[in-house]
Amino acid sequence: MAVYTTLSAADLAALIGEYEVGQLVSAKGIAEGVSNSNWVVETTGPGGAGGRYILTMYEARVEAADLPFFLGLLDHLSARGSPVPRTVHDRAGAAYRTVRGKAVALIEFLPGVSVDEPTAAQAHAVGAALARLHLDAADFPGQRANAMALPHWHTLLAACGEDGLYSIDPGLPELVASELSYLSANWPRDLPRSVIHADLFPDNVLLLGDKVCGLIDFYFACTEVTAYDLAVTHSAWCFARGGTYRPGIGEALIAGYQSRRVLSEAERKALPVLARGAALRFVASRAYDWLHTPRGALVTRKDPMDFARRLSFYATDGDRAFSASAG
Amino acid sequence: MAVYTTLSAADLAALIGEYEVGQLVSAKGIAEGVSNSNWVVETTGPGGAGGRYILTMYEARVEAADLPFFLGLLDHLSARGSPVPRTVHDRAGAAYRTVRGKAVALIEFLPGVSVDEPTAAQAHAVGAALARLHLDAADFPGQRANAMALPHWHTLLAACGEDGLYSIDPGLPELVASELSYLSANWPRDLPRSVIHADLFPDNVLLLGDKVCGLIDFYFACTEVTAYDLAVTHSAWCFARGGTYRPGIGEALIAGYQSRRVLSEAERKALPVLARGAALRFVASRAYDWLHTPRGALVTRKDPMDFARRLSFYATDGDRAFSASAG
Repeated sequence: MAVYTTLSAADLAALIGEYEVGQLVSAKGIAEGVSNSNWVVETTGPGGAGGRYILTMYEARVEAADLPFFLGLLDHLSARGSPVPRTVHDRAGAAYRTVRGKAVALIEFLPGVSVDEPTAAQAHAVGAALARLHLDAADFPGQRANAMALPHWHTLLAACGEDGLYSIDPGLPELVASELSYLSANWPRDLPRSVIHADLFPDNVLLLGDKVCGLIDFYFACTEVTAYDLAVTHSAWCFARGGTYRPGIGEALIAGYQSRRVLSEAERKALPVLARGAALRFVASRAYDWLHTPRGALVTRKDPMDFARRLSFYATDGDRAFSASAG
Repeated sequence: MAVYTTLSAADLAALIGEYEVGQLVSAKGIAEGVSNSNWVVETTGPGGAGGRYILTMYEARVEAADLPFFLGLLDHLSARGSPVPRTVHDRAGAAYRTVRGKAVALIEFLPGVSVDEPTAAQAHAVGAALARLHLDAADFPGQRANAMALPHWHTLLAACGEDGLYSIDPGLPELVASELSYLSANWPRDLPRSVIHADLFPDNVLLLGDKVCGLIDFYFACTEVTAYDLAVTHSAWCFARGGTYRPGIGEALIAGYQSRRVLSEAERKALPVLARGAALRFVASRAYDWLHTPRGALVTRKDPMDFARRLSFYATDGDRAFSASAG
């Protein structure tokens, strides 16, 4: 959570002037987004009736070369009816502009709040929205390689070093080594692929009651095994704050998903290994960040052990958990 | 800038349910406020037409015992017509509630953006708004001692130690010692007193063009020498980013102030010493925070030398600067 860059009132007014959205009324930097700076911007609106937007400035972690994919995807999905914010294009038709050397995009503001302990009805709705996203993305022409796939887990974890992992938890080096080895040998091939969100944590879903109003923060979206996205979402949504698995939430998530897109037999069978991969992916990035985030940084480090415990759960109980839900 | 406390969607919805503002639609933590956590909250509104609010949670630096003064002052000033956000009272009529052991208030959302290099017209408008605030506060019954008055500068600077001040800048211990001695001997007595804002930095003023739409963040407000507030505002507004005094801005600020409230002869004469005090007050708090903010804190430390340079300016050129403007 951070606003990394200061934009002056003059910068903001000039920027807003490039869009058909009326005059700037208000702008508040918001404490969201790890890889970019965000503002809630209010304007007098294209027709004078008021408009609200999220202004995103892309910082180091997002490659400008990826922006046409990310922003084009938002426009594609929202045009199909997925609850995804559309981008506002400037008067020249561009989906992003450059301010002070950094790319910025003006994005539709969506209602809703993020939950941290979802109900089964909410998990069902999120599963359905994820399946819809996969279906709506089917004819999106963009492609993007997954920059956080299995080979990158190896790289990140190697950069942590055994000592680094040990400093986080004495059991972590062994868990990581055995899972990397298991996943390298058993990662599924030939499953259906599509564009996936790849990071659909509760933070990235805006809900009002049981209704999904927004899926946001597509900056890990990529072309990947479709069912891996469900596994990522499962790993992110289906555990209580203390770390215990919530079977009712897992079952609702998968039932919701299958209410829109039925998993193939091969996908169903692959869910346990995909979930181990998903959990290891977050262990890898969080352990790396834990060891490499400078003191004094504005970003709150996330404890890698949360996902190490989920990884252990999937390794020992994943088959049972998924056969109960996706059987 | 920070959100220190996490509120769950359930916490937020329950809290909003205590007010006559409709249902929760959205809540975004904002990167503003050093002493508290803030969210922009949207609701369906009391009449269903939508409502926007700032939800403030008071963290350690704000004393709960002071809240009736701060929040009562907002209601008093907004009722008088000053551009100050009113507080929304809950169904039981309370101006603040307690959530997870901390006081929270729901406050009117005001339009406008903060500028960092004001124009003369903006400085004039800010001066006029400050004078109006002083006049509107005249019949406010609350009283609050200034917790950042001259004795506290002594305390804070003593807590920095000579070595600490020297580590910030080798010239700082001598400047601080001579100014503390000068101000102790020359601090004006018998000037008119009133409720003052005491921290009217550009961050705390919302502007649209030349119009002041909001004066916010009253958490240093207190009963103090009225003209000291103008001196604080002068020290905060009238210097370019590089540190040089902007005479046109200083003159416009004071002319704007006097367009609403004419300074007495004694007040005019006291401005240079009041401005030295204002500058030393921010040197003291910033030097203290600089030396005592733990690494890894979410707050960006402010360089104490910005105000040390302004202090030196007022010490050598204050008489001239103010006689040009307030003559």
